[in-house]
Amino acid sequence: MRIAVIGLGLIGGSLLRALAADGHEVIGYDADPATRELARAAGYRVLGSAPAAVDGTDVAALAVPLPVLPKVLADLAGYDGLVTDVTSVKSPVRALAEEHLVRRFVGGHPMAGTEASGFAAADSELFTGCVWVLCVEPHGTDLADWLTLARLYTGLGARVLPITAAEHDNAVASISHVPHLLAAALAGKLGSPLNEALAAGSFRDGSRVAGTRAELTAAMCGGNATEVARELRQVIGDLEAMLRDLESPDPVRALIPALERAGELRRAWPPKPGVPGVLTGPAVRTLLELGRAGGWVTGIGTDDILTMRPESDRYSS
Amino acid sequence: MRIAVIGLGLIGGSLLRALAADGHEVIGYDADPATRELARAAGYRVLGSAPAAVDGTDVAALAVPLPVLPKVLADLAGYDGLVTDVTSVKSPVRALAEEHLVRRFVGGHPMAGTEASGFAAADSELFTGCVWVLCVEPHGTDLADWLTLARLYTGLGARVLPITAAEHDNAVASISHVPHLLAAALAGKLGSPLNEALAAGSFRDGSRVAGTRAELTAAMCGGNATEVARELRQVIGDLEAMLRDLESPDPVRALIPALERAGELRRAWPPKPGVPGVLTGPAVRTLLELGRAGGWVTGIGTDDILTMRPESDRYSS
Repeated sequence: MRIAVIGLGLIGGSLLRALAADGHEVIGYDADPATRELARAAGYRVLGSAPAAVDGTDVAALAVPLPVLPKVLADLAGYDGLVTDVTSVKSPVRALAEEHLVRRFVGGHPMAGTEASGFAAADSELFTGCVWVLCVEPHGTDLADWLTLARLYTGLGARVLPITAAEHDNAVASISHVPHLLAAALAGKLGSPLNEALAAGSFRDGSRVAGTRAELTAAMCGGNATEVARELRQVIGDLEAMLRDLESPDPVRALIPALERAGELRRAWPPKPGVPGVLTGPAVRTLLELGRAGGWVTGIGTDDILTMRPESDRYSS
Repeated sequence: MRIAVIGLGLIGGSLLRALAADGHEVIGYDADPATRELARAAGYRVLGSAPAAVDGTDVAALAVPLPVLPKVLADLAGYDGLVTDVTSVKSPVRALAEEHLVRRFVGGHPMAGTEASGFAAADSELFTGCVWVLCVEPHGTDLADWLTLARLYTGLGARVLPITAAEHDNAVASISHVPHLLAAALAGKLGSPLNEALAAGSFRDGSRVAGTRAELTAAMCGGNATEVARELRQVIGDLEAMLRDLESPDPVRALIPALERAGELRRAWPPKPGVPGVLTGPAVRTLLELGRAGGWVTGIGTDDILTMRPESDRYSS
């Protein structure tokens, strides 16, 4: 398959490398001339504009930050291939695609990445084993296009999870976006030589993603502001409850129930894969049912879809 | 040197292993018979009571959780060796030692540990490169005793940092105790199969220490409740400011200043070691000055103390 990757930062660069390693013909573009040179020096075909890069391709994967997407979509006016993206919010991108009259669009979001950024950090193995959300909507998703991307990404070793844009945005607000804000609040606790010297493992891990470029985190959280605000309000409420525990006559005893519940949830995570399954005659409805149960697509056969679900469904019954 | 280690969990068990590997004679004790058997099976001398274990030793290292310390200190009544501990709060332990009329006491706290616990997880290399706080007080610290422990722990590869109990408790509230509460709040965001499936790197690291046993985290935070409450109130205030940013007309732009500051602090951490130094004729005052600057002791010579400080002191003008 012939695929254009627009934007060659950590995610786009890794996608370019991974797709090429999987035998696809890839063409790259990045707005930054130095990044283009870096990718060319690594042996990739990189063109000087987005329209030139997507010309004649089957798929255009847009790996630019959310604030840059409107410009890229405008540049691609008239493109009749399949368009997807990798940004961390999906409802706003879906609206942008409609606004720019993109003919064939399926939103995507690989749950991969590190606090590093840029093509120099790109890694063809970044997506191996990662969850790659591919949006399906009860109305408006072309199943053939969805399957094209699912085949592409399962080929890279990703777990392709089908879910609606709205459900995605709600879930990532709590388990991906809010963690970035907590990390930033924690990093703010440095600021004295003693604190810096005493900070150890719990600080290191809890604040890791605070090292992400501020514009990326701001675009991610700000682009999903309503959902992130609601989840952050809940976290603040939980922390205020812990504050009351700390101020109670027996703080050690008061803290235990909340810490026990958190510990049980955390130790049960990540969910283990269960037994393989097969979807025949799949429809958007069956795909959505799979994703809502935390299941994912592992491969696309000729007439069926290979799937996997978590080992035990603690939430059924 | 002959050393008793009371409590053979992750920290105590690791200390037993590390001291034995460094050539010391070690005797262990744990209140749990199964743990005693485990340590004996690993080849260590383990006795059936705390008084029996400390009898005739130079140093007794108490590696039990804070709530158990009063009982252990009562068991050790009359012991005339040097007593130290490894718990994560230092002012309450100092008060306990005074209350129990411990003759020679220097409080300690290795900034090491994982979310694992128990002797089975003990590792003789756990303290290599870690910061080990050894308390010094302007009044009441016996310098010879302090140096005995500093020699012992630098021998294990630890960075021995001198600071008062009060300053320690304030610093660890912000960079060690509060992170455990943030991790617990984050772990509470699991609870649906979709959230569990989509949680990735930022969740994994941000919530890691939520897997710690609830009683340990509760004892740590509850034992330092006043300091932790004050630091948690500040974090809640920082998160409320981010909430206002999210609710502003341009959340992406509004979030950037706080995220930039956090990113700068986080990327500058950990501080790099600078050039070695030497303290001659050391006094409590010079040791405290070293610790407050984020410096640490690397070794104890015959007449001097080998030290290290962070590369650049960003906080001195």
